[in-house]
Amino acid sequence: MTKKKSKISSAAYKQLEGIVGPDHITDAIEDRICYSYDGTKQKALPDAVVKPATAQEISEILKVADAGEIPVTARGAGSGLTGGSVPLHGGLVLDFQRMNRIVEINKVDMLAVVEPGVVMGHFQAEAEKQGLFYPPDPASADVATMGGSVAECAGGLRGLKYGVTKDYVIALEIVLANGDIIHTGARTYKSVTGYDMTKLLVGSEGTLGIITQITVRLIPLPASLRSVVALFDDTNQATDAAMRICEEGIVPRALEFMDGPAIAAVRDYIQVDVPAATEAILFSDVDGADITTEQEQNRICEICTDAGAAETRTAAGPQEREKLWEIRKSISPALYKIAPNKLNHDVCVPRSKVRALMRWLDAVVEEATVPVIRFAHIGDGNIHVNFMFDHSDKQKAEAERLSKKLFKKVINDFQGTLTGEHGVGNRKSKYLPIEIPPRELKLMKEIKDLLDPKGILNPGKMFWP
Amino acid sequence: MTKKKSKISSAAYKQLEGIVGPDHITDAIEDRICYSYDGTKQKALPDAVVKPATAQEISEILKVADAGEIPVTARGAGSGLTGGSVPLHGGLVLDFQRMNRIVEINKVDMLAVVEPGVVMGHFQAEAEKQGLFYPPDPASADVATMGGSVAECAGGLRGLKYGVTKDYVIALEIVLANGDIIHTGARTYKSVTGYDMTKLLVGSEGTLGIITQITVRLIPLPASLRSVVALFDDTNQATDAAMRICEEGIVPRALEFMDGPAIAAVRDYIQVDVPAATEAILFSDVDGADITTEQEQNRICEICTDAGAAETRTAAGPQEREKLWEIRKSISPALYKIAPNKLNHDVCVPRSKVRALMRWLDAVVEEATVPVIRFAHIGDGNIHVNFMFDHSDKQKAEAERLSKKLFKKVINDFQGTLTGEHGVGNRKSKYLPIEIPPRELKLMKEIKDLLDPKGILNPGKMFWP
Repeated sequence: MTKKKSKISSAAYKQLEGIVGPDHITDAIEDRICYSYDGTKQKALPDAVVKPATAQEISEILKVADAGEIPVTARGAGSGLTGGSVPLHGGLVLDFQRMNRIVEINKVDMLAVVEPGVVMGHFQAEAEKQGLFYPPDPASADVATMGGSVAECAGGLRGLKYGVTKDYVIALEIVLANGDIIHTGARTYKSVTGYDMTKLLVGSEGTLGIITQITVRLIPLPASLRSVVALFDDTNQATDAAMRICEEGIVPRALEFMDGPAIAAVRDYIQVDVPAATEAILFSDVDGADITTEQEQNRICEICTDAGAAETRTAAGPQEREKLWEIRKSISPALYKIAPNKLNHDVCVPRSKVRALMRWLDAVVEEATVPVIRFAHIGDGNIHVNFMFDHSDKQKAEAERLSKKLFKKVINDFQGTLTGEHGVGNRKSKYLPIEIPPRELKLMKEIKDLLDPKGILNPGKMFWP
Repeated sequence: MTKKKSKISSAAYKQLEGIVGPDHITDAIEDRICYSYDGTKQKALPDAVVKPATAQEISEILKVADAGEIPVTARGAGSGLTGGSVPLHGGLVLDFQRMNRIVEINKVDMLAVVEPGVVMGHFQAEAEKQGLFYPPDPASADVATMGGSVAECAGGLRGLKYGVTKDYVIALEIVLANGDIIHTGARTYKSVTGYDMTKLLVGSEGTLGIITQITVRLIPLPASLRSVVALFDDTNQATDAAMRICEEGIVPRALEFMDGPAIAAVRDYIQVDVPAATEAILFSDVDGADITTEQEQNRICEICTDAGAAETRTAAGPQEREKLWEIRKSISPALYKIAPNKLNHDVCVPRSKVRALMRWLDAVVEEATVPVIRFAHIGDGNIHVNFMFDHSDKQKAEAERLSKKLFKKVINDFQGTLTGEHGVGNRKSKYLPIEIPPRELKLMKEIKDLLDPKGILNPGKMFWP
């Protein structure tokens, strides 16, 4: 490996050291390696890592970066799935581990103020202790940070009933590329004072500004939560049951699907108490008043049985519920038992196209020369399609061919979208033009240029090239 | 009245006539007068009114406007409350009465596609026929258009449980200032493909682009709806009851307050079956499963009685419900019985500040030399404060003095916002700097300049001067 020239001059490094103190900056190779990857397993070394403690420090850091045209990539837990936090162009990684305070959880105002380094799962738990609920819940919530989840507009398991991150973020503190600190939104339930800059920043993947404080609205914690797990010997029956649940007007907070190969993968990973004939599992969570969740749970069991379920299971309490969900939650780590690499997609289609997409994917699975694993937030139409591949160029090329085929089908024939919740990062940026026409892309790039004229914020992400 | 020079040259007028046809353009004074005002009663004459039928026609119209630097103001029903649709700088008004098609209501995809000229109330009713629900519900829904409601990000009576317009708009077709037609968002339940341009356009008051098609998500129509009306002899008891309902974790879909002077105004307007001692009324609507609404209705009655309500009333069916709500819905027209003019504000504060704001307003009412009327989406913290005034300069100046005092208090002392749902328009633009610091305002103006470099879209709105 040839040593690349650092994009941070020694003078700039000194300045940065002066801002955060020598304990909170490093350019040691062993540290840089730790900040070189994310959930995509791609790697790119930063030239240095800084660990600021305040928005003011970040402002000063960005002034140095602006002067030296140093790339700056914000990084939470590095659990993203599209390369969002990988410092592709080197430069500086901002690590938020020292900005991990829950500033406030306010039960009267039904909101919380957090720093970006707060771990989502920790924040959710703290809110729940006060009878409050923060619905966004990506599978990575136990490690992912609030900053990363806002930058990527994370979705997750509870999207069907409760929406995604952008539906909860009401105000932000942002440091702009030149170091200016701005505040967007308001602390109120609603506000139309000026343009909505908050929603523009949510999901902008660290390309428009650095998030330094987040205000989210909270809702009352639902009184009751019940689960149904239904086992099917046929994939299409499971899809059909999911669609029937939605069409009846039931809105489960989670409605999750996994296919036969996903079950098989989990079998290799943990002990799975599911018959060998099971080709699909449907997981439903309903929440609300105790009396309504009981009714909905029973009705979901009936619908699944009518649709052909071999078996339905319900949970009597939190522990049984945990057990029921264990198979679903083990998918991601289990996949690496099948192959060392994956192109994992999260296309999303309108609900009326879910059946057709699943059938079309049946044919793709037949044709593919690499393993294909499907699981889904099926109620949202958000289908996770994983093309697994080994270290050979041949399998990699096949996974890429299938990816492109999937995106074209979803966008051109099924009125769908490239990514429902994972974001664009660099992994999907070359596919962006399939969905977004040139004029719209130009407008987005103009907004990027307006907020980050030197292109120092997370270069190489979102747009292509 | 001296005749101002038209901003539309006769050559440009000819071009516009060629685009829409001679039946759909007018510069007759009697027509222009009809398009000169909105709910604020301020007036400014346009030079001409065009009634396009398609986005393509609007694109061609904007090319003419761009070439001639002709101001273009989009107008729905003219029911806005901050001057959004008043053509302050003359030029062209776009009237959407010919673009009034409900393109699609899709029960499987849980969404609808509408043209901007569709009347909200009509659309709500059509959705409800299919068991679907479009929650945004400003008091003007029976006349307001979908285009206007999106441009202003309308709120309304159901905001507490269901949020505001931006929470439902998922995709837009927009004509940019230079005539380019763009599409934002996706038809899917969620999408993070690129920046969220949709939410930037919602609430931008016609200053960033012309909305030509709107896609909104819908939710299942709640099975049951129940109402409680509680009468109080003391304003602060009513406020207290409202806060206790929220603090207990009940989320009514509407939680509305009106004060004694508001009741008195309505008494002069319709027959009101309320005791003379009543100084405040609290209206609650709860929806959901029949069993839970019954429980919540009963609990709300208890909470109100505990807080000191002289009387609580419930409705047995839709007609009784309508009767209960009649007083609340008569406020706006009744106000003009008090004085011919009003400065009507919709400040919003965090819920923890509602009691303090209401008490502070008690003192303002004492001090004021003009009538002050309060009603509120009190659960949202969205307090409507109306300073009434006659034709004298003295009363007008007093209303303006009180307005500024209110805004400063709300923003500086109560962590609140200038406008919860009415928008900025021209009526509040001079107060924008109280809430939004210079750097943030500069950024908003830069976005305006990016999308509308010649400043032809609704000039004089949002920013000051």
